[in-house]
Amino acid sequence: MTQRYDIAIVGSGPAALEAAINAKIRNKNIIIFGNKDFSGKLIKAPKINNYLGFYDIKGTELKNHFEEHIKNMGIQITEERIDSIYAMGEYFALMANQKQYEAKTIILAVGMEYGKQLKGEEGFLGRGVGYCATCDAPLYKGKSVTIIGYNKEAEEEANYVSELAAELHYIPMYKGEYDLNDKIQVINDKPIEIKGDEKVKKVIMENDSIDTDGVFILKDSIPPGQLVPGLEMEDEHIKVNKNMVTNIKGCFAAGDCTGKPYQYMKAAGEGQVAALSAVEYLSEI
Amino acid sequence: MTQRYDIAIVGSGPAALEAAINAKIRNKNIIIFGNKDFSGKLIKAPKINNYLGFYDIKGTELKNHFEEHIKNMGIQITEERIDSIYAMGEYFALMANQKQYEAKTIILAVGMEYGKQLKGEEGFLGRGVGYCATCDAPLYKGKSVTIIGYNKEAEEEANYVSELAAELHYIPMYKGEYDLNDKIQVINDKPIEIKGDEKVKKVIMENDSIDTDGVFILKDSIPPGQLVPGLEMEDEHIKVNKNMVTNIKGCFAAGDCTGKPYQYMKAAGEGQVAALSAVEYLSEI
Ligand SMILES: Cc1cc2nc3c(=O)[nH]c(=O)nc-3n(C[C@H](O)[C@H](O)[C@H](O)COP(=O)(O)OP(=O)(O)OC[C@H]3O[C@@H](n4cnc5c(N)ncnc54)[C@H](O)[C@@H]3O)c2cc1C
Ligand SMILES: Cc1cc2nc3c(=O)[nH]c(=O)nc-3n(C[C@H](O)[C@H](O)[C@H](O)COP(=O)(O)OP(=O)(O)OC[C@H]3O[C@@H](n4cnc5c(N)ncnc54)[C@H](O)[C@@H]3O)c2cc1C
Repeated sequence: MTQRYDIAIVGSGPAALEAAINAKIRNKNIIIFGNKDFSGKLIKAPKINNYLGFYDIKGTELKNHFEEHIKNMGIQITEERIDSIYAMGEYFALMANQKQYEAKTIILAVGMEYGKQLKGEEGFLGRGVGYCATCDAPLYKGKSVTIIGYNKEAEEEANYVSELAAELHYIPMYKGEYDLNDKIQVINDKPIEIKGDEKVKKVIMENDSIDTDGVFILKDSIPPGQLVPGLEMEDEHIKVNKNMVTNIKGCFAAGDCTGKPYQYMKAAGEGQVAALSAVEYLSEI
Repeated sequence: MTQRYDIAIVGSGPAALEAAINAKIRNKNIIIFGNKDFSGKLIKAPKINNYLGFYDIKGTELKNHFEEHIKNMGIQITEERIDSIYAMGEYFALMANQKQYEAKTIILAVGMEYGKQLKGEEGFLGRGVGYCATCDAPLYKGKSVTIIGYNKEAEEEANYVSELAAELHYIPMYKGEYDLNDKIQVINDKPIEIKGDEKVKKVIMENDSIDTDGVFILKDSIPPGQLVPGLEMEDEHIKVNKNMVTNIKGCFAAGDCTGKPYQYMKAAGEGQVAALSAVEYLSEI
């Protein structure tokens, strides 16, 4: 039987880490998903002056302090990207790369992906556009698939899908070496629009276009509304009340994903509140 | 002419300090009122595990990190207790011990006084009950005054008032040596109720009672609704929206005083948001 956690935290920035330490202090059985650098927005910051207690500190140094803190408390990041989350009533099912995790409550601390959506991306969502290639791969057996990859991890998904698909075009949105199957065609062009009628038909790029049956857009994070079906949004942010409660029972949110200002301390403070709200919710059910 | 600050921050706990550093980074001309220990709730904490970045730290140590941070940024605490604040339209007037300060915006980060109110305290407020003895002393010239003092600073106010009043009873709510005028009578009993008809007449204690014309209750902090006339409260907390905006234009609030959970990180996160909201407000006026 799958282990069922008390709290699953999605993300590993300051909001997620502060949520994790507070949940742990309350003796909750937690799992936290993210990456070992915690947050690109942390390690890339050249100089931070507004995190009370640390003056004039580099992002990488602050990251080290965070790392020591969670290590001392026995908290480890599970390095997985959660692709989708389903509210099952009694629990949540979190899907990552064909694995499934279960938790009684979830805290979304996924940050904000600043990248703009492609023209047609939202309109064709679920009609040929997806954010999890491994999840939906079976639908594209023998078909033509395009993957727009924003990071190296996307290559693994591309390799997997290429085994089922008839052909796979890979559009890398980053520079570097690509570890891809021979079957995969790498396209060095800039995607601009997704076109079709009932379903996706074409990816239009700056210089060319590709005929395709499906497009996967693989970024570091997935828009929360797509990650958790039914989650209520307010403009581009997750709608929460002051206790960081979303519209879905047992689902809490914290950090940049709940709204501006985009800042570490605001994110961490909300992570704490979200964790304590989740703890209270657990004691009630 | 009195100097007019951009932002006056009332309080010196984590909410206030985080507000101060963020306002300072945005080049605002600020003043911050509180005490040199920052917060009793900080220095009394034996062990803190949930302030991300510092594991297993004593309150006094965390206080030292905060102190170094603000010192490095050229921020100094003005050691005054603000007794009352008036919204004057274009600015706020902040009263402290017969001095007046002016600011275009204010951030209330006054914490929560956990002590319960006395029976009759709220009912007789303004009709013989007050929180600022030095402010109201002239009203009690030649009369009988009772001061219920929760800390050593109250003794100074008592000495001042005793010069005007006909008699002064001092009920200390703490242990120690008392530096009081000979004229002042110290009463070692526990106050329970304030009684009267139109105006205050009596303080009822556990073992005895005192006839009196006025009662001053001198704690570390003043209930925010009394501190800022017209401030909208929600139960015992200051009502704010998610941008830490109160019902009074130019008045923001952060930390324990806006609601539970009572925690450092939540307080600091809100302090940051309040400061950025004040900065935005200043750019609009
Ligand atoms: C260069 C730079 C400098 C900055 N400097 C400052 C500064 O000086 N002061 C300040 O206060 N703020 C600063 N910021 C803003 C600050 O970085 C953010 O406000 C803060 O990181 C938000 O924290 P968060 O926890 O909400 O999200 P993030 O830090 O964005 O963390 C979210 C994490 O969750 C992961 N994630 C997302 N979705 C999933 C998923 N489905 N599965 C698993 N993991 C997922 C992401 O990969 C990411 O690692 C800066 C930002 C940048 C880019
Ligand atoms: C013993 C103890 C241990 C704790 N341990 C933890 C812990 O481990 N983790 C955690 O997260 N939280 C802990 N807390 C709770 C935490 O201390 C509070 O949540 C936090 O201090 C709130 O910060 P604040 O800035 O809102 O207010 P406060 O820290 O209360 O600061 C408010 C300050 O403003 C001053 N002030 C008030 N009114 C005025 C005025 N009119 N004029 C001038 N100054 C004024 C007060 O004197 C005070 O110094 C603990 C509390 C206590 C008492």
